Amino acid sequence: MKATIRKAKKSDAASIHTLIEELAVFEKAAGEVIVSVSQIEKDGFGATPLFECFVAEVNEEVVGMALFYPRYSTWKGATFHLEDLIVTKKMKSKGIGTQLYNAFLIQAHQRGVARVEWAVLDWNIPAISFYKKSGAVVLEDWRTVQMDKKIIDKYISIIKSSE
Amino acid sequence: MKATIRKAKKSDAASIHTLIEELAVFEKAAGEVIVSVSQIEKDGFGATPLFECFVAEVNEEVVGMALFYPRYSTWKGATFHLEDLIVTKKMKSKGIGTQLYNAFLIQAHQRGVARVEWAVLDWNIPAISFYKKSGAVVLEDWRTVQMDKKIIDKYISIIKSSE
Repeated sequence: MKATIRKAKKSDAASIHTLIEELAVFEKAAGEVIVSVSQIEKDGFGATPLFECFVAEVNEEVVGMALFYPRYSTWKGATFHLEDLIVTKKMKSKGIGTQLYNAFLIQAHQRGVARVEWAVLDWNIPAISFYKKSGAVVLEDWRTVQMDKKIIDKYISIIKSSE
Repeated sequence: MKATIRKAKKSDAASIHTLIEELAVFEKAAGEVIVSVSQIEKDGFGATPLFECFVAEVNEEVVGMALFYPRYSTWKGATFHLEDLIVTKKMKSKGIGTQLYNAFLIQAHQRGVARVEWAVLDWNIPAISFYKKSGAVVLEDWRTVQMDKKIIDKYISIIKSSE
């Protein structure tokens, strides 16, 4: 099956949101999505977009997406980060994920970035196998560290009170 | 010891580059830095900066830095990524890293980002312990995947030739 791959537009925000929620369920984090459709409209398609996105269409329906944004490596220079590569469940294993992956990598190539990067869950063996087959390298010794808004607020209140 | 923390400026590019190289040696990747001083000037202090940076000064000498840039979470919204938190070896264990870390987190707090994130090597126990003590969470089940320029080029040539 061949999907149509095109740059996402503002009117795709609801479809993009649906795909994001579907991925969160797959990643066992269903309650974690706090971003709304209108926030995606604003963040992705406003005056200063915070991300870029390709969507895959079949019969005029959005069935997948590749969402990315620039990052910076102090070793290599400008890079791209692929935040989400999603194909809706009923359309999986039809090559649409590869089409989106390729569109992203062609874009990275054309814009001359020094590296592309993304994150994968260590139990998602099919995804890891797909990435490795394409030549990508899985870094086994790096861990991601995060503070969410609540933790940041708490930390700031502690350092403010000890000043 | 109390360092002066301030926003980096273009004339700090050489100091920033020296710190980047020092970190690469510490991370057992000495040969990996291909970014030059002039590229840092252009990328960080040009018309559209690709990163922001705080530096720590002691006796008018730059002895550390916290370099970061915006990212986007499709679950949470706008976030910050702390690419490098570096204090030069002779000035370690004097609280300067904490000062830089705090400056970054205060900035994140003021700008209202939903999350801050960074990467740590799994063998860097002192760093992991420092982050955990501050409330940050280490994600054990996520792995970073990368393709550098050479791998991207190779992949593109393969998909182009199979079209």
